Amino acid sequence: MKHQKSIEVVFSPDLYKYYQNPEAIVVVVDVLRATSAICAAFESGVAKMIPVPDLEKAKELKDKGYIVAAERDGNVLDFADFGNSPFNFTPSRVKGKTVAYSTTNGTRAIQLASESYSVVIASFINMSAVVEHLVNEKHDVVILCAGWKGKFCLEDTLLAGAMAEKLLDNQIFYSACDSVTASLDLWKLAKNDIMYYIEKATQRQRLKRLGLDDVMEYCHTPDSSAVVPVFEKGVLVAWHNMIKK
Amino acid sequence: MKHQKSIEVVFSPDLYKYYQNPEAIVVVVDVLRATSAICAAFESGVAKMIPVPDLEKAKELKDKGYIVAAERDGNVLDFADFGNSPFNFTPSRVKGKTVAYSTTNGTRAIQLASESYSVVIASFINMSAVVEHLVNEKHDVVILCAGWKGKFCLEDTLLAGAMAEKLLDNQIFYSACDSVTASLDLWKLAKNDIMYYIEKATQRQRLKRLGLDDVMEYCHTPDSSAVVPVFEKGVLVAWHNMIKK
Repeated sequence: MKHQKSIEVVFSPDLYKYYQNPEAIVVVVDVLRATSAICAAFESGVAKMIPVPDLEKAKELKDKGYIVAAERDGNVLDFADFGNSPFNFTPSRVKGKTVAYSTTNGTRAIQLASESYSVVIASFINMSAVVEHLVNEKHDVVILCAGWKGKFCLEDTLLAGAMAEKLLDNQIFYSACDSVTASLDLWKLAKNDIMYYIEKATQRQRLKRLGLDDVMEYCHTPDSSAVVPVFEKGVLVAWHNMIKK
Repeated sequence: MKHQKSIEVVFSPDLYKYYQNPEAIVVVVDVLRATSAICAAFESGVAKMIPVPDLEKAKELKDKGYIVAAERDGNVLDFADFGNSPFNFTPSRVKGKTVAYSTTNGTRAIQLASESYSVVIASFINMSAVVEHLVNEKHDVVILCAGWKGKFCLEDTLLAGAMAEKLLDNQIFYSACDSVTASLDLWKLAKNDIMYYIEKATQRQRLKRLGLDDVMEYCHTPDSSAVVPVFEKGVLVAWHNMIKK
């Protein structure tokens, strides 16, 4: 099986309709901070996560007894257990539990992708594990960047490029997609000093203004986790805990 | 007036809603081939152009007596006067006349932008003239890439980067937009040998398959024209022929 599986990158959930592919594994990326936080939670042993698109739904789940991570503009919401930073998902808080995570951009991307073959969650912290999973599964790959409120964002693009570079090392995959080319070239510019490059990102500056930029290095450091979260029947679970299709 | 006017780049008409700005001049870009052909026509002295979104509308205008440029998959349509290549718009054919130009991606972008302060048409062949116009006008700038059927495309992104680079040399403008950053960085990779870089573009390969790639060098060579087409009341006219607002 040589060069038979395609890789595509989608720069915004609004463009996903042009890349929809029922045979593809969709890799959802929202580096700052939703998919990094989700991967951190699974590394800490969370049993399940429920991505929720709005605060009403988050409150509803809190009332049902779930642990809820939710914030707006850097402030933890009064009904929530803690905020959205990856650092909040410690084993003592989440191990073995089900946690609802409030994320507008991330939830939208995950739900859009749910008609595909499968949906996995990627961040820099689990990127090699995701790549290994994709190589093993041998499906087309669509990397879906959550972006910032529908707009293109740099940090998701860099991760897309980093994963595409590793996938294309493998002879299964090919690309005929301009977004892949752009992601690869931007990643090549950034990879030798990603913390320097990412200073250019508007979301990096936004988090700095909000005092939420303590997560920058953690969210851009590859491979602190080997867990691949997958979306199944409305919830996220770890791949190794699933029964394989 | 220092750093007061923003520059943004939009990678697809589907994302334009997130960048809409009634004070902005929207610069529509569709390098292969609609905006290059429009600029070529104005360089040849066309009086007016009517961008049309579909073949029915093109046929309707032909029946009303207009000159019509229209093709599908590289074949000139039977009712049309000639095809969509910039090379067709010679002075002997178009000077002083009104021409309808059939372009799906380009027309959509132009019509979307029509609620903004003004809409101008850019290609590599008139890029410095467009930049000069934008510097003189002192408005926010939104560069709208037509893309390929809604998808991100490299050639439009490179032109966006080339124009953003020139605009940011001028102290009027600033950028806080990740699409601008990406466009600038990709343009820096490409600018020393754009014909080499553009080999990567999927649209370049598509045109090669269709035997339509004779336009590649022309469409990527800066500044063979100093005319800035603008969209006014449903038609394109040359800026210097307009009464200023």
